[in-house]
Amino acid sequence: MSVKVSIVGSTGYVGAELVHGFSGHPEVELKYLTSETFKEKKFSDVYPVFRGICDNTLVSTSDVPYKTIAQESDLVITALPHGVSSKVVPELLEAGCRVIDHSGDFRYKDVATYERSYKLTHPDPELLKEAVYGLPELYREQLKTARLVANPGCYPTCSIIALTPFLKSNPILIHRQDIIIDAVSGVTGAGRKENLEYSFCELDESFKPYGVTGHRHSTEINEQLSFISGDDNGKAVKAAFTPHLAPFKRGMLATVYAKPTKFFEDLSTDGIVDYLTSFYKDETFVRVLPKGVLPDVKNVNGSNYIDITGVYDEDTGLIKLFSAQDNLGKGAALQAIQTFNVMFGFPEDTGLKTLSRGV
Amino acid sequence: MSVKVSIVGSTGYVGAELVHGFSGHPEVELKYLTSETFKEKKFSDVYPVFRGICDNTLVSTSDVPYKTIAQESDLVITALPHGVSSKVVPELLEAGCRVIDHSGDFRYKDVATYERSYKLTHPDPELLKEAVYGLPELYREQLKTARLVANPGCYPTCSIIALTPFLKSNPILIHRQDIIIDAVSGVTGAGRKENLEYSFCELDESFKPYGVTGHRHSTEINEQLSFISGDDNGKAVKAAFTPHLAPFKRGMLATVYAKPTKFFEDLSTDGIVDYLTSFYKDETFVRVLPKGVLPDVKNVNGSNYIDITGVYDEDTGLIKLFSAQDNLGKGAALQAIQTFNVMFGFPEDTGLKTLSRGV
Amino acid sequence: MSVKVSIVGSTGYVGAELVHGFSGHPEVELKYLTSETFKEKKFSDVYPVFRGICDNTLVSTSDVPYKTIAQESDLVITALPHGVSSKVVPELLEAGCRVIDHSGDFRYKDVATYERSYKLTHPDPELLKEAVYGLPELYREQLKTARLVANPGCYPTCSIIALTPFLKSNPILIHRQDIIIDAVSGVTGAGRKENLEYSFCELDESFKPYGVTGHRHSTEINEQLSFISGDDNGKAVKAAFTPHLAPFKRGMLATVYAKPTKFFEDLSTDGIVDYLTSFYKDETFVRVLPKGVLPDVKNVNGSNYIDITGVYDEDTGLIKLFSAQDNLGKGAALQAIQTFNVMFGFPEDTGLKTLSRGV
Amino acid sequence: MSVKVSIVGSTGYVGAELVHGFSGHPEVELKYLTSETFKEKKFSDVYPVFRGICDNTLVSTSDVPYKTIAQESDLVITALPHGVSSKVVPELLEAGCRVIDHSGDFRYKDVATYERSYKLTHPDPELLKEAVYGLPELYREQLKTARLVANPGCYPTCSIIALTPFLKSNPILIHRQDIIIDAVSGVTGAGRKENLEYSFCELDESFKPYGVTGHRHSTEINEQLSFISGDDNGKAVKAAFTPHLAPFKRGMLATVYAKPTKFFEDLSTDGIVDYLTSFYKDETFVRVLPKGVLPDVKNVNGSNYIDITGVYDEDTGLIKLFSAQDNLGKGAALQAIQTFNVMFGFPEDTGLKTLSRGV
Repeated sequence: MSVKVSIVGSTGYVGAELVHGFSGHPEVELKYLTSETFKEKKFSDVYPVFRGICDNTLVSTSDVPYKTIAQESDLVITALPHGVSSKVVPELLEAGCRVIDHSGDFRYKDVATYERSYKLTHPDPELLKEAVYGLPELYREQLKTARLVANPGCYPTCSIIALTPFLKSNPILIHRQDIIIDAVSGVTGAGRKENLEYSFCELDESFKPYGVTGHRHSTEINEQLSFISGDDNGKAVKAAFTPHLAPFKRGMLATVYAKPTKFFEDLSTDGIVDYLTSFYKDETFVRVLPKGVLPDVKNVNGSNYIDITGVYDEDTGLIKLFSAQDNLGKGAALQAIQTFNVMFGFPEDTGLKTLSRGV
Repeated sequence: MSVKVSIVGSTGYVGAELVHGFSGHPEVELKYLTSETFKEKKFSDVYPVFRGICDNTLVSTSDVPYKTIAQESDLVITALPHGVSSKVVPELLEAGCRVIDHSGDFRYKDVATYERSYKLTHPDPELLKEAVYGLPELYREQLKTARLVANPGCYPTCSIIALTPFLKSNPILIHRQDIIIDAVSGVTGAGRKENLEYSFCELDESFKPYGVTGHRHSTEINEQLSFISGDDNGKAVKAAFTPHLAPFKRGMLATVYAKPTKFFEDLSTDGIVDYLTSFYKDETFVRVLPKGVLPDVKNVNGSNYIDITGVYDEDTGLIKLFSAQDNLGKGAALQAIQTFNVMFGFPEDTGLKTLSRGV
Repeated sequence: MSVKVSIVGSTGYVGAELVHGFSGHPEVELKYLTSETFKEKKFSDVYPVFRGICDNTLVSTSDVPYKTIAQESDLVITALPHGVSSKVVPELLEAGCRVIDHSGDFRYKDVATYERSYKLTHPDPELLKEAVYGLPELYREQLKTARLVANPGCYPTCSIIALTPFLKSNPILIHRQDIIIDAVSGVTGAGRKENLEYSFCELDESFKPYGVTGHRHSTEINEQLSFISGDDNGKAVKAAFTPHLAPFKRGMLATVYAKPTKFFEDLSTDGIVDYLTSFYKDETFVRVLPKGVLPDVKNVNGSNYIDITGVYDEDTGLIKLFSAQDNLGKGAALQAIQTFNVMFGFPEDTGLKTLSRGV
Repeated sequence: MSVKVSIVGSTGYVGAELVHGFSGHPEVELKYLTSETFKEKKFSDVYPVFRGICDNTLVSTSDVPYKTIAQESDLVITALPHGVSSKVVPELLEAGCRVIDHSGDFRYKDVATYERSYKLTHPDPELLKEAVYGLPELYREQLKTARLVANPGCYPTCSIIALTPFLKSNPILIHRQDIIIDAVSGVTGAGRKENLEYSFCELDESFKPYGVTGHRHSTEINEQLSFISGDDNGKAVKAAFTPHLAPFKRGMLATVYAKPTKFFEDLSTDGIVDYLTSFYKDETFVRVLPKGVLPDVKNVNGSNYIDITGVYDEDTGLIKLFSAQDNLGKGAALQAIQTFNVMFGFPEDTGLKTLSRGV
């Protein structure tokens, strides 16, 4: 018997990738796909690539209320704007379903950090305690029984996967206040927007930084990295973070700079790759690349894989780490499907084994 | 028990898409993947996106001869250059396997047309009689028992699918000597080439015609369209064909102009779309678009679908037809998998139901 | 003493290219640049590439009325939407300046054709008689003294330049009712738009036809080609026209199919190229390519050049013509500057000699 | 009377951009353009965009020896591979002309650093003392009379322009051992290459780091920054440098992280921008952006401008600097023309005032 999954906000890029992923999942029935903008149209009218694959009719939550959606679904995935999720999710939970939320509204433990980062007042801070951060590589056990999962941000996922091996160790292997994360995203990261700034003519042959101070993902990264490094207050890590926008649709790459502590034993490129390989040896979706190979977003796009590696830079004594993922894949929708598999007891790669394409 | 499939020439773009497609096929075991250039490497060293998905070791046909490959495979797919296939395929067939060939070497019935088009002497013209043209929409019955299948060219597939409904009818609905096919291909159509002309810097922000007279696909299109229109000599249709190269990786679009005969009953855009819809109502992979919707390569890329429609241009009295497909999908590798399913008795969409992605 | 030029509607892509072109023109002073959306900002705030090159303050026509603009300028160039120009231009002319208009409002001689094509009532049809179609290769003499110039559409320019040699001859060399124009435009052709359909994520790796029947440029092309072919009623030519949108910013390519009449003497590719070369031997901006070379939009982008050639297709008896131009260059703004030079007595290539770049 | 300039190695991308730039320079006559690969062809056969602009015949140095080229030119610009320049340049100088060299062969003062970085033995280390590093913003006075100029690398130019204001000051304002330079280049940076890795299909929708340790530009950056900071040994600065390759043709962006010393007075974003503005107030080609505006490669491409700004990141106490330039413009060929103007006494912006385009 299939698990019934509904997607609230199904016509943004994350929503569409969820539909894509779940369409190929053998254990799932898509119950409700909601859209306020496109209600009563078919999903495949909005994304014609899905014609014949997903022709479900989009419903408005005015017509099918959250309560009904929740009662008729085993899981509801919310792909809503920040500040909206925090109001909708409690209602869904109350009606008895489990929820994976894609916004930033439940990703923090410290409500003050959330409120400062998002410039919003959280209507239900108690739920922050319950919510599990949806990174299976870190919180697999808690996810199995979680009622509410906060799917991580895209930049946080690729930053955390790269840095965890050096911060989760005891003793920790890099200085927590000397981390720099320089990252690049494809344009889908900005969402499906009617906005001159994201028009083809403005972005083709363009490359630029944005949000260079105070980007929201910065505090999310630092809180999680602090937890990982053993600081339950979420304050110990102070990584500098700078995102950039590049002219491709999908894909994200982080280049991370860190200073090794004296506890770092084999301070060499070989040592770093060996350590990463060993650390992630049981993780299906973290591919530590062979020595000498660097990640490229084209090799992860359309999949739930994250490709990582690291080098030791003798000239400066720094470690450089590199991680590449599909911002809509491991960075958003496909990671939610990985988490879904954990939550509902399926093998973690169910529905996630196919690549998008060979070239 | 799985069907054993080997791919000769597996590291070109068609080969890689075959590996991609068969990797997700539940009834297939990939037996041998050959490559002379990359022998002894893993397939995933050449295409790192496949790491963990297809890590098969590439073999040279110097080490594993064609005879062995054929004997240990139920089907061998050859993705070799024109002129090479014609020598390799007879050897494979003799050893007892079935073959789908991707070159132009077995696509023609008239050896003279082949030899003129390819400027080659065919070493085994008898096989041309036996070879079945691998377009399931036209030759499904013959494909079921075919020993040798000539997988169609990419431009021919999208031209033929668009025009067949108007030429296969009795009486035929368009003039056979007044057809124009103006088509555009993504860059993968040129193959995986170490060639300045296909470098990023030469092709980005470029758009150009090429092969504007005497393109090989021109004679293939005309021979097939002639057969379809009832002329067993393959000479009745004289379509003009012009290909162009556009700056995207995958995708092909044909814009076709035709003059209706007096037998064309409902000469209107609605009439054309209705007729196409009815003609292709039983075909899974031909999607006739709803009225008012035009095809776009982005909606078919990564799939075996071909999207088509047509309009009547009152001002000129012409019919315009539009068809879009993935040049590596329905235009090459995925069409071969569709044919494979027909040949081996599987439902025609086995392994072809997943899209590449939602966005 | 410089010629004073003002641009009404200076912040669209055509406006910006006019500013670019005139910024490098030695005989011009840019007087007023108007913008309603960005009034009081600097032009270089809207297009930061111009910082230090053109920092003029944008004015609203509420603050500087059309009459003032006209009185203080020798030439006003209007880059306004269709239906707006037809109201503004008479006011400008009345105040005594000369005008080059970029809309479709003054391109037709037959007001009925205009009104049918644009679904508008023309407020000042008398001006259609006076307006000169701004294609210097055709109307150079009239442009010298023209008070009102209708700058041609982009598709019409590249269609007309390709076909003129075969229609202006006596007798005409191609059948007037058997012409097909299949054309492709870069995305700037759609204007500077806050529109989901033109967002990067929707257009990257996309290719599609649009406006496939009844496109406005179709009637403009046919009226002009009819005049050229000797039909003063503008009805003799019935070319079928199909535009497509391709994923690059700038550039336009037309592939034209025509049937030669019996008067075509040297019906061969060499004959066609020789004829074109001879026909355009005195035109600076029409580059007939050497035999064997086909046009590519990358070779004309950023310039006022249009590259053309033709071939004879023996298999079908058709002539194929190819023309490539920058849709914002020869297809819009730089052609207006060429016309400006004609109107004000400067050498025709003044300010137009520089290419955009070498690569 | 024009200055006679010859370009040795004129058909690479840097060579072509030199031809582009000098074609529009009012004081220059292009004397010899050499090419071994394309000798006897016209320059415009290799770059058809130049048809009618630069149709010079390419000569081989077998036919016109270096001595002749040098004797008949006032300046020879060499755009040759590393290791070749070091052999050719002495010969040219001996024959009496001045030289601007584009390779890495004369950029270092410390021959050991050069030899380690390039894995070559320098045949004429004495010339390293004489060669002037061709960054006019730093070495304008020396350039005026220089006989041999080493045109800087692209990454060094954008790194040095961003960091100079903080290292040239007294006392220096940032820690010299805590600098990170994370940079991105367009594909022309790799040169005009017949190489699968740089093919369109491999790079479109790709983004990746490369040369992540020991990149040659790393030592060039560090030697120059050390000099600027007052260390004549060229060893004091140890910046970590990581280049990335992005899917656009032209453009380069550096994101630089630095730690302020206690001497940094106004440690705020406003303070940084004010300081940069003041520092570069007399430089034509360094555009310090207005507060709140970040650089984008699209705004500098086709020009000799470099756009810079900086922010103070309160959360980490770091300064972040951003600089964008055209890798072939200020990063290579157009910077050489700026230097040419300095060397030959022309206003520094001669021939460099035109932008490539408005959009």
